[in-house]
Amino acid sequence: MPLTILFSARDDDWHEYRDLLPDALARAGLEARVTRQAEDPATVDYIVYAPSGGMSDFAPFTGAKAVLSLWAGVEKIVGNPTLTQPLMRMVDPVGLTEGMVEWVTGHVLRHHLGMDAHILAAPGSWDQTCPPLARDRRVCVLGLGVLGAACAKALASLNFRVSGWSRGQRTVPGVTCHSGPDGLAAALDGAEMVVLLLPQTPQTDGLMNTARLAALPRGAVILNPGRGPLIDDAALLAALDSGQIGHATLDVFRTEPLPADHPFWSHPHVTVTPHVASTTRPTTAAPCLADSIARLETGAPVDGLVDRARGY
Amino acid sequence: MPLTILFSARDDDWHEYRDLLPDALARAGLEARVTRQAEDPATVDYIVYAPSGGMSDFAPFTGAKAVLSLWAGVEKIVGNPTLTQPLMRMVDPVGLTEGMVEWVTGHVLRHHLGMDAHILAAPGSWDQTCPPLARDRRVCVLGLGVLGAACAKALASLNFRVSGWSRGQRTVPGVTCHSGPDGLAAALDGAEMVVLLLPQTPQTDGLMNTARLAALPRGAVILNPGRGPLIDDAALLAALDSGQIGHATLDVFRTEPLPADHPFWSHPHVTVTPHVASTTRPTTAAPCLADSIARLETGAPVDGLVDRARGY
Ligand SMILES: NC(=O)c1ccc[n+]([C@@H]2O[C@H](COP(=O)([O-])OP(=O)(O)OC[C@H]3O[C@@H](n4cnc5c(N)ncnc54)[C@H](OP(=O)(O)O)[C@@H]3O)[C@@H](O)[C@H]2O)c1
Ligand SMILES: NC(=O)c1ccc[n+]([C@@H]2O[C@H](COP(=O)([O-])OP(=O)(O)OC[C@H]3O[C@@H](n4cnc5c(N)ncnc54)[C@H](OP(=O)(O)O)[C@@H]3O)[C@@H](O)[C@H]2O)c1
Repeated sequence: MPLTILFSARDDDWHEYRDLLPDALARAGLEARVTRQAEDPATVDYIVYAPSGGMSDFAPFTGAKAVLSLWAGVEKIVGNPTLTQPLMRMVDPVGLTEGMVEWVTGHVLRHHLGMDAHILAAPGSWDQTCPPLARDRRVCVLGLGVLGAACAKALASLNFRVSGWSRGQRTVPGVTCHSGPDGLAAALDGAEMVVLLLPQTPQTDGLMNTARLAALPRGAVILNPGRGPLIDDAALLAALDSGQIGHATLDVFRTEPLPADHPFWSHPHVTVTPHVASTTRPTTAAPCLADSIARLETGAPVDGLVDRARGY
Repeated sequence: MPLTILFSARDDDWHEYRDLLPDALARAGLEARVTRQAEDPATVDYIVYAPSGGMSDFAPFTGAKAVLSLWAGVEKIVGNPTLTQPLMRMVDPVGLTEGMVEWVTGHVLRHHLGMDAHILAAPGSWDQTCPPLARDRRVCVLGLGVLGAACAKALASLNFRVSGWSRGQRTVPGVTCHSGPDGLAAALDGAEMVVLLLPQTPQTDGLMNTARLAALPRGAVILNPGRGPLIDDAALLAALDSGQIGHATLDVFRTEPLPADHPFWSHPHVTVTPHVASTTRPTTAAPCLADSIARLETGAPVDGLVDRARGY
């Protein structure tokens, strides 16, 4: 019996995956049928899911062995009480991780080098002040998961002095790792740039609040490619206005698309990138989905199993 | 007899080195006296030199064992007929090389990610087009010397597809290396970004001319942290106007400071950085100078000996 895989995402995604996913499944040695519509929900073996597909009731899928999210962030589905099947978030070491490493290292280097002043310079500006070397610059990465650890490691390879923070204690080569609520202050201590790569959970909501922003060195830079709610927007705006925070480069927001009248857009010290820090790329994600399904079928260990109690 | 070291650079440099250099020499085990003024030129053992010091006649320094340039580029002194002593250019693996790697990787990532569009975006712009991954982006580094090789290697570590070019054939891990006049076209072939890290010599003058710019893929980006004359300015401006070249980020110019009325300043697709891609940092350069002198004293091999015939 071929596996039945229900693809629940928006039309645009379907157009990208309708050939790629069956191909990848076949390459992974699986006999499978990918469909957008299951006549009998009970016959569905796996659900490939994105919130944009609109599915909200997982109860009828009584035979489903797992729900595989197309996204790395699962805050929109993790609390769904009808979801009792195992939930997998997207882990794609090429498409997703490399893309995030490029965005983070690029924007950290941009702020490190003070590029904006050159990009926006008036004719004739010839101020030869040089930045310090990366080895004299402290960067903190909050979240040392798949993405945070890869970014912290890449920044350390560029000689930045990197501290990191996670729930459990992690080891990342070249990175001073801290953990748990008590480790946060140490991780942030002296950080001239802070990169947010935590998931959105009740524990991380509003983490970057007035007090934590005030604890950073004056003029520190915030980079948020994680999730909008990690930041208390009003606290950030006040800290930007006072100069306590020198700049914020934000990829994610409490409301997306970020409304055109949101003060972030017009603030001279905020850069908005439109949730593009990294993206699930179908050509690399389809093989990852197929590989996960193959592993789940044989009981082999898989990456990205979500712990519902932790919320990520 | 202590060594006599003549420091010939501008006052600002002297203020930085007057304590650092004697300290570094002592640490290197050398008995030496650093002076700005030699009563008897014939007694000078080494000359630490920058063009800004104004020295142009090296003939009186009959006992000088070498001239050590504070700069990596020696085009202003290499052709001086009075200079018969060995000439060393600055090689500083920390201060100079790391600084250049940071500027080059930073600006390559800036163009790769299309950051300028976000930095300059109008409120409400929410175009989620993602760049390709670095692994699908071709970058060419012209010059695989101390700086070019380090930059090419760093770009390859970020997964860029890197080609490189030098006079003699080089080997750089992860980089497709080409050499000699016949290798240039292959190195440039398909390059979406070209980084210029060649020295200024009669052979490299005007290298990036109309024909070579035209051979690049449409919209290619030029990054010049090497020397101004590597580019034919008029050819570059024409290629920028036609869209053949998408952007140029230039750190060095035929005339520096770049005159305020030079068209580069006002061109919407040119970014000027004021010769800050990397800089000789006294705290790391002083020990390098001391180390070179110590090696020259004992006849040990030294980095950075300039070949007068090659011109670098
Ligand atoms: N902007 C974009 O384009 C984009 C793209 C993809 C992902 N993202 C975001 O990036 C986030 C991270 O992705 P990932 O794949 O790296 O996730 P992950 O592997 O699950 O890592 C999450 C990290 O956060 C830490 N963490 C979670 N809760 C914490 C808490 N209360 N205190 C301290 N540390 C905590 C975890 O600690 P442990 O290591 O102890 O578990 C882990 O290190 C995603 O959740 C998503 O929101 C954004
Ligand atoms: N903007 C700044 O802040 C800044 C700072 C420092 C240096 N620089 C510039 O960077 C340049 C490079 O520095 P470096 O320390 O890397 O110099 P380097 O070690 O001497 O390397 C020069 C490279 O260029 C190659 N080359 C020279 N002439 C060539 C030709 N005609 N055809 C092909 N390849 C040629 C050399 O080939 P081989 O390997 O075969 O010799 C070598 O790979 C300096 O000359 C200086 O102008 C700029």
